[in-house]
Amino acid sequence: MVILGVDPGYATTGFGLIRAERGTYALLRYGTVTTPAGLPFPQRLNILFEDMTQLLEVTKPEAVAVEELFWGHNITTGIGVSHGRGVILLAIERAGVPLFEYTPMQVKQAVVGYGKAEKHQVMDMTRRLLRLDRMPRPDDAADAIAIALCHARSSTSQLARLMGGKP
Amino acid sequence: MVILGVDPGYATTGFGLIRAERGTYALLRYGTVTTPAGLPFPQRLNILFEDMTQLLEVTKPEAVAVEELFWGHNITTGIGVSHGRGVILLAIERAGVPLFEYTPMQVKQAVVGYGKAEKHQVMDMTRRLLRLDRMPRPDDAADAIAIALCHARSSTSQLARLMGGKP
Repeated sequence: MVILGVDPGYATTGFGLIRAERGTYALLRYGTVTTPAGLPFPQRLNILFEDMTQLLEVTKPEAVAVEELFWGHNITTGIGVSHGRGVILLAIERAGVPLFEYTPMQVKQAVVGYGKAEKHQVMDMTRRLLRLDRMPRPDDAADAIAIALCHARSSTSQLARLMGGKP
Repeated sequence: MVILGVDPGYATTGFGLIRAERGTYALLRYGTVTTPAGLPFPQRLNILFEDMTQLLEVTKPEAVAVEELFWGHNITTGIGVSHGRGVILLAIERAGVPLFEYTPMQVKQAVVGYGKAEKHQVMDMTRRLLRLDRMPRPDDAADAIAIALCHARSSTSQLARLMGGKP
């Protein structure tokens, strides 16, 4: 199964495409969608929408996993990210790809096995599971890869439970 | 000039279309775009996007005025509204209509002449300026009409200042 992970933003949105097959994982593609800071906000939203739409067309994922908004202390940033995330969800919905949402805690639980794991533990386990020498940069792309992996491992776990086996 | 005012939401978005000519105002159309509560969130965003796109096509405004997000105490609602507002700004941007944003205080200032006016004062003045017997319902539509009026009166003021006259 080919899964696209997305770490949403309006300035920088990270993405990571992985293939998951029988408990093994391969990183296919990763990167960021960025929108120029100098442009009016609605234009930036349109660039984000068009780039996400194109990314979905080119990569043809069977599922998209998007991180739920982590609500930090900066409300202004949170408003901007929510606007961008709305546009990203719209692009996925219009592409007709099944969409799954995960909290940061669910990502930690699925990747590391512990919902309160540190970020570096998530990155280290993601790197190992994908058999990479080092984690891709920037952080937004690395986070998106971990989100894709979270979905792969959550689906596998659910399937295994349904079939009476072990995750 | 035909102006569409928008009071954004993801469950209910109010709109009001007015014509402004030489300091007189006429209400042309108003209403709400609503999305069914039972549907998955991305589907609701898509309905909002499609309905807003259609509204812009049908009403052909020369300008759209959208209220800036009033950040209340309910962060969960604020996140939802921000997602919806992102999709609304996207629809306007893609329709190629000039977009203007106003804070609640700017709406009060432009309509009543006092940035800290009470809501009922805004509604009363909106009703008088449009020569209506009573304000339209629901509140989301009434708020959107006031936002359209805010833009009409702000533009007039700016133009008058540019021309050296009085607002």
